[in-house]
Amino acid sequence: MDILPVFLFRGEVVDRVVITSRQNEQIKWAKRLQQKKYRDQDALFYLEGVRIVEEALETGLVHSLYFTDRLSSIARGQELVKHAQELKIPLWKCTEQVLSELTDTVNSQGVVAIVHKPTWPLKTQGVLLIADEIQDPGNMGTLLRTAVGAGVQGLLIVDGSVDLYNPKVLRSSMGAIFHLPHWFFSREAVLQLIASRGTALVVADLVDAVNYWEANYPRDLAVVIGNEARGVHADFRDRANLRVKIPLMGPVESLNASVAAGVLLYEILRQNGSVHPPLLA
Amino acid sequence: MDILPVFLFRGEVVDRVVITSRQNEQIKWAKRLQQKKYRDQDALFYLEGVRIVEEALETGLVHSLYFTDRLSSIARGQELVKHAQELKIPLWKCTEQVLSELTDTVNSQGVVAIVHKPTWPLKTQGVLLIADEIQDPGNMGTLLRTAVGAGVQGLLIVDGSVDLYNPKVLRSSMGAIFHLPHWFFSREAVLQLIASRGTALVVADLVDAVNYWEANYPRDLAVVIGNEARGVHADFRDRANLRVKIPLMGPVESLNASVAAGVLLYEILRQNGSVHPPLLA
Repeated sequence: MDILPVFLFRGEVVDRVVITSRQNEQIKWAKRLQQKKYRDQDALFYLEGVRIVEEALETGLVHSLYFTDRLSSIARGQELVKHAQELKIPLWKCTEQVLSELTDTVNSQGVVAIVHKPTWPLKTQGVLLIADEIQDPGNMGTLLRTAVGAGVQGLLIVDGSVDLYNPKVLRSSMGAIFHLPHWFFSREAVLQLIASRGTALVVADLVDAVNYWEANYPRDLAVVIGNEARGVHADFRDRANLRVKIPLMGPVESLNASVAAGVLLYEILRQNGSVHPPLLA
Repeated sequence: MDILPVFLFRGEVVDRVVITSRQNEQIKWAKRLQQKKYRDQDALFYLEGVRIVEEALETGLVHSLYFTDRLSSIARGQELVKHAQELKIPLWKCTEQVLSELTDTVNSQGVVAIVHKPTWPLKTQGVLLIADEIQDPGNMGTLLRTAVGAGVQGLLIVDGSVDLYNPKVLRSSMGAIFHLPHWFFSREAVLQLIASRGTALVVADLVDAVNYWEANYPRDLAVVIGNEARGVHADFRDRANLRVKIPLMGPVESLNASVAAGVLLYEILRQNGSVHPPLLA
């Protein structure tokens, strides 16, 4: 499903015209994607910055590019524009002021990409991660990056979590969004899915739990990382196959959600090794 | 060294007068502490929020309290005020508008504490952490919290790191500031100190390094966590006794600094156990 605005044809290189008005229809169309509603509706999101846009181009998912002279003033930026032209990706050149409508960083690098959301067939083998109403964008982004590092096969996102395509999440995730298959479900749907496929449910909990490094982890499992304030939801805790505890040696109440995920996922990796190759390289 | 403003005497309860002007001298005096320069000069900092101020009261380090009706409208807030009065801590009642001068959160809980910076005698046994120019306040705060959780004995902060008493650091650290002895040094001073005391230097690095779970960790060691962009500084890398690698199973360049710290410190804890009790409970 290709959701190009009607006045733009794929393959058309439009960088000869410079957009100078914030009221330009093309800018207004792109700016809508700052709202989750439109990101969901169009299955598009936006990325900013040279490095992440370079990475996005490799995925084949880039829909269109907006850039300014700031980008074309550096050799790497020129390369990026050239590469996008070769890929026949629509390019819109803008003034700095116009591009600032689309960015939310203070020091923009002069490039924004509109990108199709990646989609994956559902897979429940190997090590999965369940993000259960993670609220903080930085935590969610770091969780993604950590999961890719630890060789996690996929991420199940429980409804009520921060939007994965929120710009702050994308910034913390450092490109991991393209490398970690992910799916959105209600908590009940996640529980049914996990149960029906015989995947073990692992929760980090402080009560009635074994020390996480003394546990034996099955090959196919899903680790739940709970909401920052509330911890793991009772529905997950009650139906867990394995409750593990990360010991706290000093007076803190808990670890940060992504640190806890890192500690657990790397212990699972240490014990079980990498049983499945990553889906995407 | 007691740095009370001249117009205030320790033990004086001043909550019968409500400060209604942002230009009040007491407010202006406290507001200066939003700048690192004055925090360093006065060895004071400020904390906001009911929970962290409750914790601060237990440490005996609270210098004075500023609060509003919002605090005294809840039972827990009344308890806090009563407790501060028993401890003969100067209390300043303000309007919401005046207190907002001292807070940097959107939803203040109506309380700000001015607190003396904790100090500790230098100690280099057990597991130490070295923060080498950590820039992001959230990372630094999470690093502190993770270090306390993993039973780290102390934190050496290399000059050029974000101020530990920056409000954003304190917010992410969740009270760990009171439980983790910490000292500020130049990189060279840290290296000399470590060398002179026979503490092993451990760096996380991707080249010329053993897998972190296959390494044998000495009892007395210092783990370096490097700058987010640049990684571990060459001076540390060159003089390291042990170079360990956290394997990355998917296409991310690195882990987040505090996640990497968590993974390493918990592996050291798993292998060596808790050899020294935490300094403060």
